[in-house]
Amino acid sequence: MTAGPIEFYFDFSSPYGYLAAHRIEEVGAEFGRDVLWRPILLGAVFKASGQSPLVSQPLRGPYHKHDLLRTARRQKLPFRFPDDFPMATIAAARAFYVLDASAPKDAKRLALALFDTAFSQGINISATATVLDVAEKCGLDRVAIEAGIADNTVKQRLKAETDGAIDRNIFGSPFFVVDGEMFWGNDRIPDLKDWLRTGGW
Amino acid sequence: MTAGPIEFYFDFSSPYGYLAAHRIEEVGAEFGRDVLWRPILLGAVFKASGQSPLVSQPLRGPYHKHDLLRTARRQKLPFRFPDDFPMATIAAARAFYVLDASAPKDAKRLALALFDTAFSQGINISATATVLDVAEKCGLDRVAIEAGIADNTVKQRLKAETDGAIDRNIFGSPFFVVDGEMFWGNDRIPDLKDWLRTGGW
Repeated sequence: MTAGPIEFYFDFSSPYGYLAAHRIEEVGAEFGRDVLWRPILLGAVFKASGQSPLVSQPLRGPYHKHDLLRTARRQKLPFRFPDDFPMATIAAARAFYVLDASAPKDAKRLALALFDTAFSQGINISATATVLDVAEKCGLDRVAIEAGIADNTVKQRLKAETDGAIDRNIFGSPFFVVDGEMFWGNDRIPDLKDWLRTGGW
Repeated sequence: MTAGPIEFYFDFSSPYGYLAAHRIEEVGAEFGRDVLWRPILLGAVFKASGQSPLVSQPLRGPYHKHDLLRTARRQKLPFRFPDDFPMATIAAARAFYVLDASAPKDAKRLALALFDTAFSQGINISATATVLDVAEKCGLDRVAIEAGIADNTVKQRLKAETDGAIDRNIFGSPFFVVDGEMFWGNDRIPDLKDWLRTGGW
């Protein structure tokens, strides 16, 4: 492919990220664009932006819980909030980057399985052991991923991706960048598609 | 019309409200729904929700400024930020409610003219005199509106609409309610239309 990729930033604790993860590869395929998945840590982003997770905010929280349920129905996806939401996602994000360099397709497969564990099954994926269980069920090398999560290169990669996202003014999840144009939110995927279709407005 | 109306909540300082004001009557006409325009004071709403105006937030502000410009281009509307943004909108909202009870079409006409003054021409509409100038240009009765703005019934009406919005968990502008279903944002108008078209998901 000669055209630039769609960069897909997300945090594994983001329910709208889960909904987007099930749609974005289809968009890439439709427009001949690779999709680069880039998990980041929203906690660090929120510190920079002064925000807090949507669903824990007064007034906004109930609206978004309702909206997540109706949007999941519309996308024909199951939806269940994990216990003890929001979750810590450092182990999940590191596990992704363990695979990303050498086996990017496996990394995406693991990412989808982690999202499904959290938001289809409603299982909290904070614990490293849970992340490794999911990886094992995907047929991936549990021992190698466990070692990789503790590796300094992987830790630095996740930190660099998160810092890089803040530097680009990315402040939420999911967040898409294509041809230098930014789109925030699962609900902006139609706009992203229209931008790619028309060449922009 | 027998089907319930689309309630359209907004604050006159809301640039996405301006963009929505130019689209929502067409949606009502398409689906045989009246549109009830309901200006409120977002300042009171933000106190309840712990939010602040979008464009003044770190990271989010630059994204939304860019998004407003591209969305206005897409809707083929001029767009200019007023000086000294955000604006006080108590006079504008009260002027709307002066007309709303007896001449709702004039109230909507004034609302659109106020929005256009603010976001097409970039003129700050905080001052009562500016609001009255706009009303006069619309061929409305300046003296009657000036008296109405100071009237206690009108003041109470605006307070009641704002309090009512908070009670309904409305936390932003524009905000739409139809058949008990809520949609937040100019970018959710396609979802609102799809909901009306399909009967919901």
